[in-house]
Amino acid sequence: MSKLAYLGPRGTFCDAALRRLAPDAESLACANVGAALDAARDGTADGAVVPLENSVEGAITQTLDQLARGVPLLITGELLLPVEFSLLVRPGTESWQIKRIISHPAAITQCRGYVEREFPDADVVAWPSTAAAAQEVAAAGSPYDAAISPAVAAGYYGLAEFASGIGDRSDTVTRFVRVSRPGSLPQPTGADRTSLVVFLRDDHPGALMEMLSEFAVRGVNLSRIESRPTGDGIGHYFFHFDCEGHVADARVGEAIAALHRRCLDVRFLGSYPRADRGRPRIGPGMSESEFAEAASWLDRIRSGGA
Amino acid sequence: MSKLAYLGPRGTFCDAALRRLAPDAESLACANVGAALDAARDGTADGAVVPLENSVEGAITQTLDQLARGVPLLITGELLLPVEFSLLVRPGTESWQIKRIISHPAAITQCRGYVEREFPDADVVAWPSTAAAAQEVAAAGSPYDAAISPAVAAGYYGLAEFASGIGDRSDTVTRFVRVSRPGSLPQPTGADRTSLVVFLRDDHPGALMEMLSEFAVRGVNLSRIESRPTGDGIGHYFFHFDCEGHVADARVGEAIAALHRRCLDVRFLGSYPRADRGRPRIGPGMSESEFAEAASWLDRIRSGGA
Amino acid sequence: MSKLAYLGPRGTFCDAALRRLAPDAESLACANVGAALDAARDGTADGAVVPLENSVEGAITQTLDQLARGVPLLITGELLLPVEFSLLVRPGTESWQIKRIISHPAAITQCRGYVEREFPDADVVAWPSTAAAAQEVAAAGSPYDAAISPAVAAGYYGLAEFASGIGDRSDTVTRFVRVSRPGSLPQPTGADRTSLVVFLRDDHPGALMEMLSEFAVRGVNLSRIESRPTGDGIGHYFFHFDCEGHVADARVGEAIAALHRRCLDVRFLGSYPRADRGRPRIGPGMSESEFAEAASWLDRIRSGGA
Amino acid sequence: MSKLAYLGPRGTFCDAALRRLAPDAESLACANVGAALDAARDGTADGAVVPLENSVEGAITQTLDQLARGVPLLITGELLLPVEFSLLVRPGTESWQIKRIISHPAAITQCRGYVEREFPDADVVAWPSTAAAAQEVAAAGSPYDAAISPAVAAGYYGLAEFASGIGDRSDTVTRFVRVSRPGSLPQPTGADRTSLVVFLRDDHPGALMEMLSEFAVRGVNLSRIESRPTGDGIGHYFFHFDCEGHVADARVGEAIAALHRRCLDVRFLGSYPRADRGRPRIGPGMSESEFAEAASWLDRIRSGGA
Repeated sequence: MSKLAYLGPRGTFCDAALRRLAPDAESLACANVGAALDAARDGTADGAVVPLENSVEGAITQTLDQLARGVPLLITGELLLPVEFSLLVRPGTESWQIKRIISHPAAITQCRGYVEREFPDADVVAWPSTAAAAQEVAAAGSPYDAAISPAVAAGYYGLAEFASGIGDRSDTVTRFVRVSRPGSLPQPTGADRTSLVVFLRDDHPGALMEMLSEFAVRGVNLSRIESRPTGDGIGHYFFHFDCEGHVADARVGEAIAALHRRCLDVRFLGSYPRADRGRPRIGPGMSESEFAEAASWLDRIRSGGA
Repeated sequence: MSKLAYLGPRGTFCDAALRRLAPDAESLACANVGAALDAARDGTADGAVVPLENSVEGAITQTLDQLARGVPLLITGELLLPVEFSLLVRPGTESWQIKRIISHPAAITQCRGYVEREFPDADVVAWPSTAAAAQEVAAAGSPYDAAISPAVAAGYYGLAEFASGIGDRSDTVTRFVRVSRPGSLPQPTGADRTSLVVFLRDDHPGALMEMLSEFAVRGVNLSRIESRPTGDGIGHYFFHFDCEGHVADARVGEAIAALHRRCLDVRFLGSYPRADRGRPRIGPGMSESEFAEAASWLDRIRSGGA
Repeated sequence: MSKLAYLGPRGTFCDAALRRLAPDAESLACANVGAALDAARDGTADGAVVPLENSVEGAITQTLDQLARGVPLLITGELLLPVEFSLLVRPGTESWQIKRIISHPAAITQCRGYVEREFPDADVVAWPSTAAAAQEVAAAGSPYDAAISPAVAAGYYGLAEFASGIGDRSDTVTRFVRVSRPGSLPQPTGADRTSLVVFLRDDHPGALMEMLSEFAVRGVNLSRIESRPTGDGIGHYFFHFDCEGHVADARVGEAIAALHRRCLDVRFLGSYPRADRGRPRIGPGMSESEFAEAASWLDRIRSGGA
Repeated sequence: MSKLAYLGPRGTFCDAALRRLAPDAESLACANVGAALDAARDGTADGAVVPLENSVEGAITQTLDQLARGVPLLITGELLLPVEFSLLVRPGTESWQIKRIISHPAAITQCRGYVEREFPDADVVAWPSTAAAAQEVAAAGSPYDAAISPAVAAGYYGLAEFASGIGDRSDTVTRFVRVSRPGSLPQPTGADRTSLVVFLRDDHPGALMEMLSEFAVRGVNLSRIESRPTGDGIGHYFFHFDCEGHVADARVGEAIAALHRRCLDVRFLGSYPRADRGRPRIGPGMSESEFAEAASWLDRIRSGGA
């Protein structure tokens, strides 16, 4: 049985994601994304589950930055988890008593309509995580009255669900990934995704377009691109790419090798089954068999054949 | 004298940026970026100063998202402000008394090394802004002992500077922009920047590369690209672009008009002088006079000339 | 009534093309393409009809080179003429008497199968044109027995048609164009073609692809590209392009103006109705109304609008 | 000792080219390019020397078309031969006697200025080759008085050199290639050229640009591109490409394999040392060692490494 670190405490969406990705795993709550990844890196855990992006808030930049630096880890799976918020209170709390609400800033943003409508005069205070907010509200003598949190946290912390489904949108989703130390890759399934971090060799105009061309010319679709600052001043960025397909696919491998040749550094973050099971449309000349046949042909003509 | 809204309270980096961008302006502190922009939109203020990106933390996504939606505003200027943090305490506070530190999460991240080194056992709590943290520490009976904050906030709130220059990096910079209601544009200076928001017509593979091609083919360099979720689910993004040059430049205007034709929507966010005074390298065939000469030539051949 | 020069003598395919393009025109036979174009240039004729390409032989390079240099002329129309050859002989000539056959080299090539099958021992001699070959065979005392020629030449020169339809292929077509001195263009019809000559500014790698990008980014399809030597040594070429659409079309005009900016020289050879009536597929964002709307939008944002 | 077929008869530029490319070879004069190539194909000769392009006249289309179809042959060498024409006459011929001049049409074109200046009233008649013209003039009872021909032909046929250096340009060059049956390739020298014939899978807009992209993305420069009709009607073309580098080079091999995947057919025409000894500029990421290193890296990450 494996042990997976996650963004705790118990009751976070990340906890819920871990339960679905690895129902039998032992879990290790960590204070932040960096700590969860470090637990995976140093062997305290066998891996970690962390959020990568949210359909409303966008990228989880701590995760992007932590995966881009330090000891390499590989993504081995992903999950799309619907984000459903509840307002959790100490049992018996009534509406008029709710004056101070806490939650993670992203949750606050996503429940802004509900809070402004129902508790226009409440103070809303940022907290490190939704579950930590629930934990705080449950603490004896807490000055806070309610936490915006996943429903599951109520059970963990002995809170009551004052209201559920309080997000402004009902279709919000967070994408979580499971990461492990390098060693082996998930087998290709035909519906895979590959994640990369790319540091450009220099910032010459058109450098980004050259990178995209390497994918385009081989018919590899990018599903996500995020720029992140290198830290070397405004105007200097590195990139996270997600593309369709598995590094074992000829077209994907050739594209990634091309990036490796042309960039300062490419960090391979893994190839893994897509949560949405979507299969790429393989353009003319881009299939495995066409790559294999072309390689044979090239061998033949290089040997003087015709 | 104009009045500018900003991300308050008094003493924030945004306040400092406003002082430099418009030394004579009256200022109006707002609780968050959205409120500052709304004050500019509804006439409560004549404009606003808000942060757009940080050289370590990356984009300020609230600003990106607020500028992309709602009543249009135009960026009319930008400033690069060095980020220098101090640890502010109530006068007389000694080191051993510092147990609970508060600040904006970005500031916490950027001072992580100092805090872990000097106050390894302290609780570090997220706060809506660095200045609000200073304000809180100054409040009678506050349970918090220190705020990571710009030095300027000490004066405003009667705090003492326990330590200065506590950021992990000394070269961190935040880029602030001044926005106004539409009406007129800053004149071209030869060292300008243009900002856009682009919603793709559809997410067909290669759509992003097509957009970049519109810039590349006209020799217009992109200095920044940020993807943001449209909210319609993982995998659906819109883009913020910064490019070199002014919309009044022929090459920039033609590129932007091309995006307008090909995209679901393009929101023009303004053309304004670059804070770094950098002038673009104008490639062969891309100068104003070459565009003008080509337009005359086209008129001539369209009239049957040779 | 206008007078048109053509590649004579009477009875050539070019003569036949002229009859179809301008049934009422007076015709002026010229010894070669250059002479026909010069007659149009110097006012000896009102225009000229010359061959541009053949579906088997390819480009008529004299025409390409003559149109690319010297006093400019404009193409105002095109015709696709099926190439059907006959073997013309003096009346009464019998098969065994046919020992020396003459024709234009292209005609010889295109009837090679017939000649090798029927007259394997005949000498086949190149002649400046098919009609000149007919004329020679008709001349008293000619040492030549048969001419490969258009059937129409038989009537002009008093020859008999020994065999008809003798081409190896029945689907060969020659494209002829009518040219005039500059002055006015044919109106756009929605099914037009535009011809250009492009001299690159330098031969840097990728220069050709840059030119193609100017068309591609504006959704303008190229229907023909021919490289021709500049005369400055192996490896130095200029290009003939045919693209879909009329220079009056916004997308075509903008593309051509872009080439003009970026190239050493662009010679506009005209916009004229396509012989095949094919209408281009106009991609998203590339229609006249979308260009016009984008231009209005650009004017608006340049004036400070939103 | 090998035997090479060439475009005869003795005394042609092709003969001169063969002498330089293979001084010790036995030579076999053929009536036309097709016959010379067929002699190489069927073993009558060990190879052939044929003209490919001329710096003024452009491509030798018969050669292009013959190499593109039929039994494959490989180019194993190239030569750039200066084109210098003489006017050859029967000994004793005087200027006023020169009334009928014969030569290959390309030679006629290239000496047009001299002929129009010196013999404005002469008939100028096309002949299959310059040397055949010399041969004809030398024949007893020939109605022709002079041949435009390489000087070398005078000696073969007993003619006198009436004038030398009569070309309109002194810098004209013809590129000849030596071809052999497949079997082995010349070794890479670092200054090589590769020739290809490419039949597009379909004529969709942008297909040509896609092909050029395959070269561009791998930093392979094209030195020549020629379109030729497929024979299937106006608007249907195939292409001859010359690119820098050797098929054994990683970047060239990958580019050609990509064309093979994406095109209806690619015929490899050989990799051989460049006559001008020009070495390609190898862009960043495009060297052999960078390709090799990237391949190792790809192997490593495909095995789960980092």
